[in-house]
Amino acid sequence: MNYKMIFKVLGYLLLIIAVSMIPPFLISLFKEQYDMIAFAISIVLTFSIGFILTRIKLENTNTKIKAKEGLVIVTLGWIFASIFGALPFYISGSIPSYVDAFFETVSGFTTTGATIINDIEVLPMGILFWRSFTHWIGGMGILVVAVAVLPMMGAGGFHVFKAESPGPIADKIVPRIKDTAKILYATYIIISILEFILLLFGGMTPFESIVHTFGTLGTGGFSTRNGSIGAFNSSYIFIVISIFMIMSGANFSLYYDLYKGKWRDVIKNSELKLYLSIIAISVFLITLDTNFHLYHNLFNAFKHSLFQVSSIITTTGYTTFDYEKWSSFSKSILFLLMFVGGSAGSTGGSIKVIRILALLKLVKRELTKIIHPRAIVSVKFGNKPVSEDTLLNISSFFMLYMLIFILGTVIISFENISFISAASAVAATLGNIGPGFEFVGPTHTYSNFSDFSKILLSFLMLLGRLELFTVIALLTPKFWKREL
Amino acid sequence: MNYKMIFKVLGYLLLIIAVSMIPPFLISLFKEQYDMIAFAISIVLTFSIGFILTRIKLENTNTKIKAKEGLVIVTLGWIFASIFGALPFYISGSIPSYVDAFFETVSGFTTTGATIINDIEVLPMGILFWRSFTHWIGGMGILVVAVAVLPMMGAGGFHVFKAESPGPIADKIVPRIKDTAKILYATYIIISILEFILLLFGGMTPFESIVHTFGTLGTGGFSTRNGSIGAFNSSYIFIVISIFMIMSGANFSLYYDLYKGKWRDVIKNSELKLYLSIIAISVFLITLDTNFHLYHNLFNAFKHSLFQVSSIITTTGYTTFDYEKWSSFSKSILFLLMFVGGSAGSTGGSIKVIRILALLKLVKRELTKIIHPRAIVSVKFGNKPVSEDTLLNISSFFMLYMLIFILGTVIISFENISFISAASAVAATLGNIGPGFEFVGPTHTYSNFSDFSKILLSFLMLLGRLELFTVIALLTPKFWKREL
Repeated sequence: MNYKMIFKVLGYLLLIIAVSMIPPFLISLFKEQYDMIAFAISIVLTFSIGFILTRIKLENTNTKIKAKEGLVIVTLGWIFASIFGALPFYISGSIPSYVDAFFETVSGFTTTGATIINDIEVLPMGILFWRSFTHWIGGMGILVVAVAVLPMMGAGGFHVFKAESPGPIADKIVPRIKDTAKILYATYIIISILEFILLLFGGMTPFESIVHTFGTLGTGGFSTRNGSIGAFNSSYIFIVISIFMIMSGANFSLYYDLYKGKWRDVIKNSELKLYLSIIAISVFLITLDTNFHLYHNLFNAFKHSLFQVSSIITTTGYTTFDYEKWSSFSKSILFLLMFVGGSAGSTGGSIKVIRILALLKLVKRELTKIIHPRAIVSVKFGNKPVSEDTLLNISSFFMLYMLIFILGTVIISFENISFISAASAVAATLGNIGPGFEFVGPTHTYSNFSDFSKILLSFLMLLGRLELFTVIALLTPKFWKREL
Repeated sequence: MNYKMIFKVLGYLLLIIAVSMIPPFLISLFKEQYDMIAFAISIVLTFSIGFILTRIKLENTNTKIKAKEGLVIVTLGWIFASIFGALPFYISGSIPSYVDAFFETVSGFTTTGATIINDIEVLPMGILFWRSFTHWIGGMGILVVAVAVLPMMGAGGFHVFKAESPGPIADKIVPRIKDTAKILYATYIIISILEFILLLFGGMTPFESIVHTFGTLGTGGFSTRNGSIGAFNSSYIFIVISIFMIMSGANFSLYYDLYKGKWRDVIKNSELKLYLSIIAISVFLITLDTNFHLYHNLFNAFKHSLFQVSSIITTTGYTTFDYEKWSSFSKSILFLLMFVGGSAGSTGGSIKVIRILALLKLVKRELTKIIHPRAIVSVKFGNKPVSEDTLLNISSFFMLYMLIFILGTVIISFENISFISAASAVAATLGNIGPGFEFVGPTHTYSNFSDFSKILLSFLMLLGRLELFTVIALLTPKFWKREL
């Protein structure tokens, strides 16, 4: 393990974080709000430590990063970013407890959107900007990691979508990573600008537009209002954000295909089809159900259903309505969407549609095998068969996800909150969603948990964001054994 | 599909059911209770129809049962047994609604133990005997099916345990099925007699002893008392039944190994080790937790914890205490045990320990692969590697189980009960357990569900009992396509 190289890379990351704090610093300066000192200190501190780390001299001229080192860098990267990213919240006193500030920042960078702040609206603008900016940076980060690091180790079956998607991610070979990343960044920025403009048209201030664009593109969910998007009370805004959440939960390489005019590939993409079908069916069922039970107005029922379904499946976590008031039927659909998540190559979290698709195809194949015991059937994406290895990889991901969900729920139950509170808190952090039910419902925050639980939940956010195996592998003694 | 042969076999099954109704009939006759007419009518009806079916003339002299026909026989077998087995309840008026009577009988034969009867204690003895006898018959039935039918089609990875267990089930080849079945029956009967005697010693009447032996061996859970085992208020009885539940949830072929003196094989059995470890850890945690929060008496905490953990993991469903009063932590452990279930080759239901073990080993292997990308590691049971095919089969079982659990929960949520009520009702029926939480908690019954839900839950019990794939395969159009 080349520790010097690892810390050198982390140093560069800290420089990026320090530079990212400049826009919120300028806002606080411009608004002459009390958080400007906090930003100044944070920037100097983060930059200095980052700078020192980048000065590390590598003994070896061979600076190629190995797979194992990649894992360490990614995991420590998210942790370092959160440790330093939490400084402005803590130093400014906006979040008086450092554990809380850390939780909030992990939640930001992992694009979860779970908050411990009970009153957001009293916070200074610089702090609000920084809080949401972490979503946008984190979303960008995860796109690169999904392109560069995860497929390198084939963790969690992410190489699957190579088989199908003909986009830039598809033929990612090391020399192309930079190009791929550039294309993803460009897409990410273009969609962001588009949403920003559309939200301005909806009557949001430029500040609100940019903050909610950050929250949407990163599928994060931090807002400027205590009532989340519902506070804007505008059907136009609800629908614009719904559409952009759905866009952010789709595979970003598809936009490149669209740009290249490969309409057919996009339409045929089976992950996209399943993703949109799940959304359509859920919206349909919840619209009917809530129209019947609650709203008695089809358009209202539709707009809230569309918004909430998009928000949960993409793991964003914005709300327009206290969905706790919905019937058990609609709520149980929402709860289950927490285990679906976005597409591969998106900023969304959770299990992800591609894995669900692969597992559904596996079930179908086993059924066929029972009916025709001698038939040899392979699971296919598009026209290409998926290897048994990949299928086992995805299966083990699913098992591990459920296992962590289960253990997490048992441990969080120690708070003696209801089962659904504990289960949804775990599902909402592990899946990088944000709000859950009851104790962590849309009108509540995570502030009432103990510090122990907050740290555990922060860990779950990280685990979910980095596709489980990456982090879990690091926790095994085997990983740290010196190889001969 | 040789329908004539299928119905002929079902005819023989009905004869067995009719004969099985004779003991409860004799009890009602002896006690001169009002249910004797009902039993008489049910026996005559069931026997006549059974007899007519057995008279079907087969056109073909080749009477070998094909895999597909095996599936149809098993599924229809459980349904036929329940349709006719429900007659005494319905005709005697003990259960006035036929849907309810059917639910109760499916619950009996699938060894679930979910009940729609609010007051059991007013029922005549013949009816109570019959109700619990269905558990014992169902338990025996599932042992044979696990030996003869399921491995034939390799559904749900059941052939796995061939690899490990050197018992009679291990080398099951068609000519040996009869011998294997005989050994299992003998084991089943011997253990039953043992429990019966030990319960007599505990002060139960012979009638109570036999009824609770039926409920334990079949891992069913029907009792003679509204307060279930708790009504006996005897630590001796609690512990005896705990031990026999644990025994009934273990692989029955292990008893044969013990009998043959193969102690080492039994001790080394990795499914048994995991099964007992899960029990030990759960009992330990719940004992500490409930002692601290509720009982303030270590022995009381231990006996109730041991009982409830054994009852839920083995999918029996007896209770000694209203576990709804436990803390969220203990309750969430119980809820999760609902997804573990008994061992392969036991009368227990749910996912089963062997599958969980295989999936855990799969996760471990994938972790190793990330750390050593070039390593080739195979998942092993004992010394024998498990084929990738079997692993995929088990993975697809797990996925299908979760999928059915999820869809079931969404549909049951239509009753507008709490999420945990719906989820635990589905988990408790699909896993053949019996009681769940809140709406279906230990002090409640399934009587308040709509007829639609009762039929759906009956279907889930059947699905769970027959290892999902068997029944699901029958529901696909492909299954019924004529082969050329």
